[in-house]
Amino acid sequence: VLLLRLDEKSRTPLHRQILERVKEKLLTGVVRPGERLPSTRALACKLGVHRSTVALAYQQLWALGYVDLRPGARPRARARALLAQPSDRTAPGLIDWRKVATPTANAALDEHRAAPPSSAQRAEPRAISFAPLEVDRRLFPLVRFRSCLSRAFDRYGEALMRYGAPAGFWPLRQTVAARLVAHGIAVTADDVLLTNGSQQAIDLVFRMIAQPGKTVAVESPTYNATIALLRLHGLKPVEIPLSGAGLDLQVLADAMRRNTPALVYTMPSFQNPTGLSTTQAHREGLLSLCEAQRVPILEDGFEEEMQYAGKVVLPLKSMDRRRVVIYAGTFSKVLFPGVRIGWVAADRECIDRLVALRRFSEIAPSMVAQAAIDEFCRDGSYDRHIARMHRVFRKRMRAALDALRTHIRPEWAEWSEPAGGYLIWLRLRPLPSRRSDLARALAEHGVEAGLGHVFFYSRRPPAHLRLSIATLTESEIAKGVLRLAAAFQELYSRRRA
Amino acid sequence: VLLLRLDEKSRTPLHRQILERVKEKLLTGVVRPGERLPSTRALACKLGVHRSTVALAYQQLWALGYVDLRPGARPRARARALLAQPSDRTAPGLIDWRKVATPTANAALDEHRAAPPSSAQRAEPRAISFAPLEVDRRLFPLVRFRSCLSRAFDRYGEALMRYGAPAGFWPLRQTVAARLVAHGIAVTADDVLLTNGSQQAIDLVFRMIAQPGKTVAVESPTYNATIALLRLHGLKPVEIPLSGAGLDLQVLADAMRRNTPALVYTMPSFQNPTGLSTTQAHREGLLSLCEAQRVPILEDGFEEEMQYAGKVVLPLKSMDRRRVVIYAGTFSKVLFPGVRIGWVAADRECIDRLVALRRFSEIAPSMVAQAAIDEFCRDGSYDRHIARMHRVFRKRMRAALDALRTHIRPEWAEWSEPAGGYLIWLRLRPLPSRRSDLARALAEHGVEAGLGHVFFYSRRPPAHLRLSIATLTESEIAKGVLRLAAAFQELYSRRRA
Repeated sequence: VLLLRLDEKSRTPLHRQILERVKEKLLTGVVRPGERLPSTRALACKLGVHRSTVALAYQQLWALGYVDLRPGARPRARARALLAQPSDRTAPGLIDWRKVATPTANAALDEHRAAPPSSAQRAEPRAISFAPLEVDRRLFPLVRFRSCLSRAFDRYGEALMRYGAPAGFWPLRQTVAARLVAHGIAVTADDVLLTNGSQQAIDLVFRMIAQPGKTVAVESPTYNATIALLRLHGLKPVEIPLSGAGLDLQVLADAMRRNTPALVYTMPSFQNPTGLSTTQAHREGLLSLCEAQRVPILEDGFEEEMQYAGKVVLPLKSMDRRRVVIYAGTFSKVLFPGVRIGWVAADRECIDRLVALRRFSEIAPSMVAQAAIDEFCRDGSYDRHIARMHRVFRKRMRAALDALRTHIRPEWAEWSEPAGGYLIWLRLRPLPSRRSDLARALAEHGVEAGLGHVFFYSRRPPAHLRLSIATLTESEIAKGVLRLAAAFQELYSRRRA
Repeated sequence: VLLLRLDEKSRTPLHRQILERVKEKLLTGVVRPGERLPSTRALACKLGVHRSTVALAYQQLWALGYVDLRPGARPRARARALLAQPSDRTAPGLIDWRKVATPTANAALDEHRAAPPSSAQRAEPRAISFAPLEVDRRLFPLVRFRSCLSRAFDRYGEALMRYGAPAGFWPLRQTVAARLVAHGIAVTADDVLLTNGSQQAIDLVFRMIAQPGKTVAVESPTYNATIALLRLHGLKPVEIPLSGAGLDLQVLADAMRRNTPALVYTMPSFQNPTGLSTTQAHREGLLSLCEAQRVPILEDGFEEEMQYAGKVVLPLKSMDRRRVVIYAGTFSKVLFPGVRIGWVAADRECIDRLVALRRFSEIAPSMVAQAAIDEFCRDGSYDRHIARMHRVFRKRMRAALDALRTHIRPEWAEWSEPAGGYLIWLRLRPLPSRRSDLARALAEHGVEAGLGHVFFYSRRPPAHLRLSIATLTESEIAKGVLRLAAAFQELYSRRRA
């Protein structure tokens, strides 16, 4: 007789409960190998459940190797192979993974452990944080997105759950191409590859070119994850200093003359971390320099849609008559960070290589979210959302710049005045104390910001802070700048002490 | 005066239509740079639409650089920068992408072009196809999945659309760990990394270890995409012949003595392409061989859940007391191919490296589908779905094996008799004619199957066919085997001619 206790109120389904209880009996030796278990009918009757519930539990016990089932006969407990036990987890493993892995994989691990991803960071609950470059969740058009998701399932049905194409969901490739055309970029859907966020776009491009000894020219400072990714691919960054006008074209030309880079990586609009955009003339200069040297450009247009003030400057890619520009964009920075949909547009010969790399490393992306975003774009929701984001962030950016002008003294810092995006870059005057004091002072005053050194590869310039207003309302911004001012006040007053 | 014609019935939103019409006027020179456009109010009135619709169109025209907007003044057409035109697409590009890309990226492209992904292949509409290894879409539990998706949004709200953790959605990591424990694998959620399908799991593992000169031991034949992926990483496959019992342990031991591989890649259950499963004894032998040499094993359990007949054999990973086994699994082969969710379970030191690689190349996966699948597992739907799949495919496999026994003569071929999964491997007797005749004969008889040579890296063994029953009903299977028999009849009768 098998005594099992079931919990009718548990979230665990009944068949799972039966399975677990029987397993316990077997593992603890209450039922021994070879011993008979009750028939499905008998057990169902005793437990007061439907026979199919017991049958399901027995079938899974069989699939897991716990019982033998034969038609017409009662289930029988099986001897199980010697299994690794949870207690083995504490025993030392046989493999030295640091030796198995490549030096770059080990370096990635060290970096990963040294700086946990922002999702794992616990922000001080009462701190005001200028750190996360993630759209304010209070602005997510979630209800609308859910209805688009539902409409996508209605429209495409089962087809959405089959293997898709490695280049992404065709209707969304068309939609993205049409949006790019509207931005002055002459492409068709075939020139567009949908990626898992623009980070994967950058990864695929680096993967396409990575060979020992190759270099990539980058702005300095630049997006810290690009630096990490270059390292991972064994590519050497060549840092081109960034002035107010964009990366220094003369320095780039000199660097190119010494050693032609495999690629130039640039963010011409609302650059991360500085928030700066380059002028039309600068863009033309950069493009003709790269055309002359036949060096491809990777243009990261990560906040392209977030131009909400000032004169519009079009992407490099819009002037790219000779197809040297690989353009990467994303829905993450305006819509949902977590939807993980970005794109690359480039010469077909380049796109096809990226598609091949994606195919062999991942088969194809999921179509579910791509189809929903496509509905979202096609019915005008995306345009309306962007218009709303412009209204909101034009005000927030103005609030931030006003507050900085009012409370941050020129003898503490100077900063950029972006015409879009979320980022303001503060260049601090020489600190009277050690740099670690800066982080401590901010924490003590209940304010967080991106510490500037992570955006430089080798140079050690003066201290900077990256302020992101992406998650803050106007009043939060105002309060945060006051706290920043208080922290600076304390830091810089030590000079006299 | 601006004459615009709008189409009230079009799927294109009105503001988009206005935008496109105004753009046309600008691009064709009907409106010239500097010229004034009608005010928002005037244009709205003339078109009979709401003012906000016109305002949205103007705002986007501004964002795209077509017009200047100033408060209180009428919009003004802007001179646009010289843009690349669609006609430039036919001009030769400046970059020789074959030179920019690495040899392995170029090889991937060649392979990609030579064998388009199955999603791009047009099956003959009237052919019966044993080619696709993709779950029958008629068995997709789509209604259930949609309600799980909806429940996930109700439960987690906006949080689902934020950046997730690089290792995947925590509740699903817990659920997968619990399922693995039920399969005898002693892991916790921290040891589990959720991937974009098991292909990404394999890619990350190869990425972790890839260095020039390193080798990976693989079964021969093996999963063709793994061969492609090894090539992409510059890893050299060492082929270990597969007998009916699994990869030849003696040959593996000899190969290891000559040159220790960085990894052994194996599919012990329902191997792709042969459908074979190894015995408990073989698994113990393989494990202790690798333990002795301290060589990690990558166990690809791609159809682990599809054991529906015969004696259950547990995964290698369940006996892995010294943590040499990296276990990869997936929801693609039982549930939805396109959901792109798989997992890796391994020693924490290994998992942490894979997580770091994923983080720097992709930031984090989307949580939407992961949360929905988690609901689907937790409410018992997944168990019920597996039970149903077992019932269906036990019958389908029996139908296939019965039909083969009845119609395929021993002088044509011999085949495996799998206890689960979707695959049957036919080894053909020496063909009287050229191999290309085989493909032609199948096509002529309206039947498709996987041609065996793609599953071998260098060996050129006798002709094989991989029959997948994944997308076929019992009657389709019976009809398909008849067609196969007719094709063989024709092929082998030529011998006498």
